[in-house]
Amino acid sequence: MGSALCVPLADRGHDVRLIGTPLDDAIVRELGASRVHPGLGCSLPSAIRVGGVGALGAACADADAIVLGVSSAGLGWAAEVLGPELARAPRPVLMITKGIVLDDAGVHVLTDAFARAVAVPDCAPVAVCGPCIAGELARRVPTAVVLTGRQPSLAHLLRGWLETPYYHPRVSEDVIGAQVCAALKNAYALGVALGAGLHERAGGGPGSVAMHNLEAALFARGILELGHVVGALGGEPSSAWGLPGAGDLTVTCNGGRTGRFGALLGRGHGAREARALMSGATLECLDVLDVLERALAARQLGSLSRGDLPLLALLIDVALHEAELELDLAELFPA
Amino acid sequence: MGSALCVPLADRGHDVRLIGTPLDDAIVRELGASRVHPGLGCSLPSAIRVGGVGALGAACADADAIVLGVSSAGLGWAAEVLGPELARAPRPVLMITKGIVLDDAGVHVLTDAFARAVAVPDCAPVAVCGPCIAGELARRVPTAVVLTGRQPSLAHLLRGWLETPYYHPRVSEDVIGAQVCAALKNAYALGVALGAGLHERAGGGPGSVAMHNLEAALFARGILELGHVVGALGGEPSSAWGLPGAGDLTVTCNGGRTGRFGALLGRGHGAREARALMSGATLECLDVLDVLERALAARQLGSLSRGDLPLLALLIDVALHEAELELDLAELFPA
Repeated sequence: MGSALCVPLADRGHDVRLIGTPLDDAIVRELGASRVHPGLGCSLPSAIRVGGVGALGAACADADAIVLGVSSAGLGWAAEVLGPELARAPRPVLMITKGIVLDDAGVHVLTDAFARAVAVPDCAPVAVCGPCIAGELARRVPTAVVLTGRQPSLAHLLRGWLETPYYHPRVSEDVIGAQVCAALKNAYALGVALGAGLHERAGGGPGSVAMHNLEAALFARGILELGHVVGALGGEPSSAWGLPGAGDLTVTCNGGRTGRFGALLGRGHGAREARALMSGATLECLDVLDVLERALAARQLGSLSRGDLPLLALLIDVALHEAELELDLAELFPA
Repeated sequence: MGSALCVPLADRGHDVRLIGTPLDDAIVRELGASRVHPGLGCSLPSAIRVGGVGALGAACADADAIVLGVSSAGLGWAAEVLGPELARAPRPVLMITKGIVLDDAGVHVLTDAFARAVAVPDCAPVAVCGPCIAGELARRVPTAVVLTGRQPSLAHLLRGWLETPYYHPRVSEDVIGAQVCAALKNAYALGVALGAGLHERAGGGPGSVAMHNLEAALFARGILELGHVVGALGGEPSSAWGLPGAGDLTVTCNGGRTGRFGALLGRGHGAREARALMSGATLECLDVLDVLERALAARQLGSLSRGDLPLLALLIDVALHEAELELDLAELFPA
């Protein structure tokens, strides 16, 4: 997604330097050799200068802004290497990284976690949330997303720097809600994907008559629970049925790793078996479910309990604890 | 859908008589000969007794409830033939028919329109709304819907009569909102379907990288506008992001006539041409768009104007008035 975001930035006329992490050497080499990004499957504009992590210092030297596209696991590393740069020359940070973290004080969104980790005064990262498949952005498919951060003026500034005829960021003041949606949509997309697997398990083939009624009920239940969690964490529940929630959930249900994992669980594979069948692919939904389970146990989701979030509770049990999948809509929608 | 709803009713042990309208003679003959419903593509339980319109009087004679599954165009006929039956013996009416109607007094939901048309005191039909593909219900796919009516006790009564291990109706008190969602989801599904057509027009093939970002933005915009319209008509906006709105929109986006029509418009066909290519198939979305256009012109959508509903305004122009499709997300999501 970091590479994809370089496309509107370059089209907007910015001088863009795309720097890989120590884990991205193969991608950097491939981009240098052919301009084709192996993950996106398309070439990047030639104006984008690509470099390995060794070029980070030079790239940051006079950069007006820093866009951070590491995975959530890389956030600590990013804070370590970017902290001194931001201390030397404070500037806007745009974060693509999605997730939530839990500590003794409660659940935190990643813009707050990163600001605390770099410990630079007035660092107020801006998060980009909402429905955006990277491969589509890189191909300039019309896309609308939201930008949000503790300093709304920075979100407005970055919006102006990013807007192109096909990429339309909009500023949301819901710093918590938009980011909670970005993190949790992976968990609820897992729930919707169970339907495809259950349909296969029942002997069904592809087609318009499948288990779409069930998937739609799971989708609606997911948005409802998403709104509860957002509200409990101090966000605006309306983000759950806007671009960050319902919007992002629709694209996330549209294939991808989470969907394949959910379908495997629906077909009756246990969680460990399903992970093995996916050859150890990274599954963000598991991290999010783990944080939410611990937050519920620590009573850090407001007054919410497992009983208020029956779909989430089911996903935690099945995806994290090898529980057998028993999906009963009567339990998700009590009469 | 009327035939499909007989399946949970029969499974629940009710004595079910399925009566065709004068337009359903071929279906009635086929069901009599083979038990296979040609529209649903599967056989119906043998306990369901099937008859033509000539058997309506006998079927109504001692029926405890009447389920009404005519199209919205057949509502006047249904009121004419059922009015005397309901006057003779008042009993619960469950309506599957979707739509909204406009008169000098404003926009009305179909339960109210039917109650007025039959002119029987205390007639309070119950509507069934929410995500339900008929062919899936007939195959006993897990399904959750909502029931709503001016007399909630009747909705609760019918809920008890309908609940099966796979069919889960839930009572909503939002008589207006749930039915407005049921009607308008066809219009907004048309909007989402434009994305598939635009992708084809741009030379794209099927696959996970298409115009899903655009479709997701249209989906989120649709839910937002649906909430505005529901609120303006006196309903609960939350229905727009529950089963009746977001839930039903997801299954309606999942193929069907509305989706094919939207894709044709997206590919650049004019509305008349697209309708011709579909050989005159019934398109409920056009009726709904027509009612909404006239309601906006007559200031019967509260204080809402076209400017508040830019996606709806675009759909009206393109689907009803041969306007060329120019989809700009910046207009749907103003900065």
